[in-house]
Amino acid sequence: MNITNKYKQVRQDTINFCSHLQVEDYSIQVVQFASPPKWHLAHTTWFFETFILKNQFENYKEFSPDFNFLFNSYYNNVGTRILQTNRGNMSRPSTDEILEYRTYVDTKMLELLEKENDPKILDLVVLGLNHEQQHQELLITDVKYMLGHNPIFPVFNENYNLVADTNSESNSIKIEAGMYEIGYQGTDFCYDNELGVHKVYVADFEINNFLVTNGDHIDFIEKGGYTDFNLWLDEGWSWVNSNQIIAPLYWHKIEGEWYNYTLAGLQKVDVNAVLSHINYFEANAFAEWKCMRLPTEFEWEIAAAKLDWGKRWEWTNSAYLAYPNFKKENGAVGEYNGKFMSNKMVLRGASVATSKEHSRPTYRNFFNPTERWQFTGIRLAK
Amino acid sequence: MNITNKYKQVRQDTINFCSHLQVEDYSIQVVQFASPPKWHLAHTTWFFETFILKNQFENYKEFSPDFNFLFNSYYNNVGTRILQTNRGNMSRPSTDEILEYRTYVDTKMLELLEKENDPKILDLVVLGLNHEQQHQELLITDVKYMLGHNPIFPVFNENYNLVADTNSESNSIKIEAGMYEIGYQGTDFCYDNELGVHKVYVADFEINNFLVTNGDHIDFIEKGGYTDFNLWLDEGWSWVNSNQIIAPLYWHKIEGEWYNYTLAGLQKVDVNAVLSHINYFEANAFAEWKCMRLPTEFEWEIAAAKLDWGKRWEWTNSAYLAYPNFKKENGAVGEYNGKFMSNKMVLRGASVATSKEHSRPTYRNFFNPTERWQFTGIRLAK
Amino acid sequence: MNITNKYKQVRQDTINFCSHLQVEDYSIQVVQFASPPKWHLAHTTWFFETFILKNQFENYKEFSPDFNFLFNSYYNNVGTRILQTNRGNMSRPSTDEILEYRTYVDTKMLELLEKENDPKILDLVVLGLNHEQQHQELLITDVKYMLGHNPIFPVFNENYNLVADTNSESNSIKIEAGMYEIGYQGTDFCYDNELGVHKVYVADFEINNFLVTNGDHIDFIEKGGYTDFNLWLDEGWSWVNSNQIIAPLYWHKIEGEWYNYTLAGLQKVDVNAVLSHINYFEANAFAEWKCMRLPTEFEWEIAAAKLDWGKRWEWTNSAYLAYPNFKKENGAVGEYNGKFMSNKMVLRGASVATSKEHSRPTYRNFFNPTERWQFTGIRLAK
Amino acid sequence: MNITNKYKQVRQDTINFCSHLQVEDYSIQVVQFASPPKWHLAHTTWFFETFILKNQFENYKEFSPDFNFLFNSYYNNVGTRILQTNRGNMSRPSTDEILEYRTYVDTKMLELLEKENDPKILDLVVLGLNHEQQHQELLITDVKYMLGHNPIFPVFNENYNLVADTNSESNSIKIEAGMYEIGYQGTDFCYDNELGVHKVYVADFEINNFLVTNGDHIDFIEKGGYTDFNLWLDEGWSWVNSNQIIAPLYWHKIEGEWYNYTLAGLQKVDVNAVLSHINYFEANAFAEWKCMRLPTEFEWEIAAAKLDWGKRWEWTNSAYLAYPNFKKENGAVGEYNGKFMSNKMVLRGASVATSKEHSRPTYRNFFNPTERWQFTGIRLAK
Repeated sequence: MNITNKYKQVRQDTINFCSHLQVEDYSIQVVQFASPPKWHLAHTTWFFETFILKNQFENYKEFSPDFNFLFNSYYNNVGTRILQTNRGNMSRPSTDEILEYRTYVDTKMLELLEKENDPKILDLVVLGLNHEQQHQELLITDVKYMLGHNPIFPVFNENYNLVADTNSESNSIKIEAGMYEIGYQGTDFCYDNELGVHKVYVADFEINNFLVTNGDHIDFIEKGGYTDFNLWLDEGWSWVNSNQIIAPLYWHKIEGEWYNYTLAGLQKVDVNAVLSHINYFEANAFAEWKCMRLPTEFEWEIAAAKLDWGKRWEWTNSAYLAYPNFKKENGAVGEYNGKFMSNKMVLRGASVATSKEHSRPTYRNFFNPTERWQFTGIRLAK
Repeated sequence: MNITNKYKQVRQDTINFCSHLQVEDYSIQVVQFASPPKWHLAHTTWFFETFILKNQFENYKEFSPDFNFLFNSYYNNVGTRILQTNRGNMSRPSTDEILEYRTYVDTKMLELLEKENDPKILDLVVLGLNHEQQHQELLITDVKYMLGHNPIFPVFNENYNLVADTNSESNSIKIEAGMYEIGYQGTDFCYDNELGVHKVYVADFEINNFLVTNGDHIDFIEKGGYTDFNLWLDEGWSWVNSNQIIAPLYWHKIEGEWYNYTLAGLQKVDVNAVLSHINYFEANAFAEWKCMRLPTEFEWEIAAAKLDWGKRWEWTNSAYLAYPNFKKENGAVGEYNGKFMSNKMVLRGASVATSKEHSRPTYRNFFNPTERWQFTGIRLAK
Repeated sequence: MNITNKYKQVRQDTINFCSHLQVEDYSIQVVQFASPPKWHLAHTTWFFETFILKNQFENYKEFSPDFNFLFNSYYNNVGTRILQTNRGNMSRPSTDEILEYRTYVDTKMLELLEKENDPKILDLVVLGLNHEQQHQELLITDVKYMLGHNPIFPVFNENYNLVADTNSESNSIKIEAGMYEIGYQGTDFCYDNELGVHKVYVADFEINNFLVTNGDHIDFIEKGGYTDFNLWLDEGWSWVNSNQIIAPLYWHKIEGEWYNYTLAGLQKVDVNAVLSHINYFEANAFAEWKCMRLPTEFEWEIAAAKLDWGKRWEWTNSAYLAYPNFKKENGAVGEYNGKFMSNKMVLRGASVATSKEHSRPTYRNFFNPTERWQFTGIRLAK
Repeated sequence: MNITNKYKQVRQDTINFCSHLQVEDYSIQVVQFASPPKWHLAHTTWFFETFILKNQFENYKEFSPDFNFLFNSYYNNVGTRILQTNRGNMSRPSTDEILEYRTYVDTKMLELLEKENDPKILDLVVLGLNHEQQHQELLITDVKYMLGHNPIFPVFNENYNLVADTNSESNSIKIEAGMYEIGYQGTDFCYDNELGVHKVYVADFEINNFLVTNGDHIDFIEKGGYTDFNLWLDEGWSWVNSNQIIAPLYWHKIEGEWYNYTLAGLQKVDVNAVLSHINYFEANAFAEWKCMRLPTEFEWEIAAAKLDWGKRWEWTNSAYLAYPNFKKENGAVGEYNGKFMSNKMVLRGASVATSKEHSRPTYRNFFNPTERWQFTGIRLAK
């Protein structure tokens, strides 16, 4: 697909998802780590305007002088940003204005793409599209979080459950000790944090070719997994107790049966479906309970070619840190990944909400060990 | 005006104000003490449905079983309520559904009003309308708070400044010591907290027939009023320091000039206009600075007939406590006023946002001494 | 007793109480509102040094330049103060240094008292002694709070239970409506907040000549008093729920029996003893449950001559506000009482920890409606 | 040294340090992460009583039944523990009782050591002594934190500055790429987290044989290091801003000069001395500013034999995670290290407060990236 068509398609994907939203849904922020849909729509657009249009068009007239302030996320290099916790205050600008903003920027971008062939600019466009695809996933999970915390459990789209998939494999795979190369070696797009290909020595290991299911986790719950401190990391145990956690996010016990909120509404938990919405502490405790462990991100990457993966982000036992030779780009674009390298764990794979061409074996996703609003799952190793 | 027309008018007033809102405005909650417009629309409707329709119509079919849970405010007698801080999470039900709810209840109410003549029921209807008028005022002040905290300072209605009024009088009034009767003695509607007429002995006092202006308050600011602890109550001084207060709510100093946010947008502060949006601590400190004091609520009520009042709620130096012989009604309606009788100060008068027939000399408004999002002002006495 | 002997006695009373403390007890601060014993010892001494010695002795050499900073409490006029919450950080200066400080100041004070006859100075000395007597009471209640929150419930002094007293009367008293004079009219010491004698009209009322007992309160508990929101003020209900309150402070249910911590250790609750350690919200809810009410501070003062009172501070239904004609002294001494006139309720009477000559019918004690670490009780009226 | 003498010496070392404390110092807890000295004295003793004496002596009579509850730290397997934040509430038991407790346990321990030769028991004794040595270091840093936050900056011991040491080397060392073995391989004591010797491939690197000095860091401060967000990790930047950090812990700028609090009192910062009391975020930002990086813990361990190290704990760029084949012991002793493996960074080396025989090249110390009350420093690599 050429870049113009690619641009059109990615931008349209965002809009398509939103077709199921009501106007009121666009502006709500329920929790600090999730952003209102309107904000995602604008911020991804702001990226193209700020990093490309403003530099490429002489006398480019920005859509609105306020938008740089409102829709910058964490790029300190690009000016004062609105505090993340205040994103939910903004009933204005309206959703319609945001959609006009998208149209305005898209028109300019398509005009530019028609004639542009500077690879540096095209690389930035590709980065912007990947950025938008990341936000598409956040958009899905943020909307789920918002509706899943509405006491009336609204149905977003009755055909869009997203947590129904099951394992296709049930074996495990053995990998021999040896030196392996880690990091992205292709020529397509990848993030800076995947670069710096380097050798790693890994000992023998065995890794499951299937993920933990809801049924497995109900077993963990019923055998007292959430109440046995021996299974938990110290911070995990504090998290369990101070939040009174007894089950994955979105699970509710109603008259003795487990239900979970899905984007298709509140539904009975399917014991055969793959477990979702657990955090690193829960993944680690589950592994401990099974007398196994989570794979490291290197083990995962080495085994990936032989594994059936995708549809869940899989917690690894690796902290999110720089690869040797990691290099940040200068300026705002360099703020993309490196600055988050503390107190986060790496997830590998891809979720059911991840854009398809956006997943690859070297992709390093990362979240705080307490977070569970993404479609996260557990693969065990030993 | 008969009760049917009165009902239609009050209900319509709410809708009229909302005509200037955008759909996104309806669901936002910026701060715990303010509620989303949608919630006000629904809650006032819920009052009629819960306290009247459900009891008066046999087999009344409620509009939605969820709404009792969602739109109860603080009536513990009527079932579990949603926490006030979570009101802003609810993108659904949509504004359209809420408007349908209003129409549904209005139809039933008008059907009932046509034939109803039981005075107990009619009293409840009048209470419901007064309740809605109170919420109309909150709706205005909550919308102002939401838009006034949006970094782009949206214009709600350019003809609706609400803080432009000035004093018409400039004298002061002397009242002689003596025994006075306090409390509502008429036959129209009043709240339970105004009843229990009782005698009070009041010493000689003098009270201004004008309110403090923005110009007066700028003088207070410039003379160091916000930095001289001798003027402040201890809790007020903590409030000033921990919130770094230097001016009334909505005031911004831009290039050496004071501006304030109004519902007509950001405007220069008019030095001749009556001061607004200060809390009890500020009112008290200003009075201290002038070597005067705030009147008690009794002094205010005694002087009211001779005073020019209205357009600002005036802080008094009286705590909000029960009159002798105060009686709560049984059940939920009795929860209306009495339960708030701690840590609040009484305000007398009426504001520019108060429904006109809703203000009277015996009316006891009350807020926490820290709150300033109402249209509040200062009248001095000695 | 002459002023010199009075000075010696009051200062010695403080030391006598401390004879039961261990060195480690002197520096601990368990909670923001309570101060370490060492701090009370020093602060009361600092009062004499700062307001008297520094002004009366030419070239007075202060004991330590740090102490003004460390032991100022809330007198903003006397320089920067250490934050109240940091008082518990100070292992140094040692208790021995503080005792030296007391001796140093006492020597100077006795030297001054021998020759001083300026009534203004002597008034300040009397104020200082009353101030120290107030701190003696806080010292007792703060020590009780500290030891009562130590998981091993240490015995402070096994002969010093302080909550064992019972009612001597069981009747009630009727007072006729009329004009009464309120405020201190004698010639001895009183606080500024008792002055400004003024007339008040009070309607007929009846007031119990006995206080609520532990047995009465157990009845309240067992009948569901702490779980029936209809009995509680809104803020009281929040306090009950967010702190999971089910009984007065220091009460523990152990194997089906109520125990309470006393300075003589953990003991069974005596059902005949007068109730202690409840806050305004509990007092108010109890009264509501009995279909009675708390007296106002005026009613209390009017009835006092006919009442058996003392040994508990009695919550009234009056907010702590200025009397008409209330005047603050200039400077730091004027910060004594007036600045606390918000969000506090008046208590009348005296507790078992109150210095005897320090209680009188016009005395206005005041605390936040949530506080219960003082020896507080309930008298009902109607 | 035989085990009996070793036991005596380690136990005496703790007491020797405390000889400079005043009684009041023993019970104070200034901040959640630091414990009162008394608690360290008792907790280290409790370890021997709980894990050895209770199991080895038939009918062992514990010193006090309360102590298990009071002085357990985080061993969930050994019963309910007192919350860490409440440790500072405990004026009782007194320091003297704690010292009696030490004597009581020491007597029993020496009795046992005389005849014991079961290697499993002796291993536990060695673990207990290493545990006490760790607490000796915490005791020093906690006392420094307490006194360093006392506004009068007390001198603990005027000969005990602890931050005066300078670099003895100024070169850097190159290490060739290759496979290296990581982990403890000796036969003496080590912690479980050092075991699981494993091979690691490491690329070429260069590492400084000297640490960053105070002078270097003043340069960083003066060149705007604390205000340039490009140098900081995102969480580090939040930490800087929400705590308004402008310098290392204990540094104060007085009349244009930098001073730092030391255990010998407040002293001028020595520009030639090695930098201390910075956290991981500061270390990382400093490295970024120098266009270098922190070494990984593997690089550090590989280079250690050629490095001049000790006197500062050195932040590495490695998260504290399990080595391959990491195994926890069963029961309480197994809670020692593994449960802390989240959100912590590894420090290597040893500080001036570390017991001498307690440091070795494989030792893995770990703290939160925000913590800086330990004697921490910076070594750069590239």
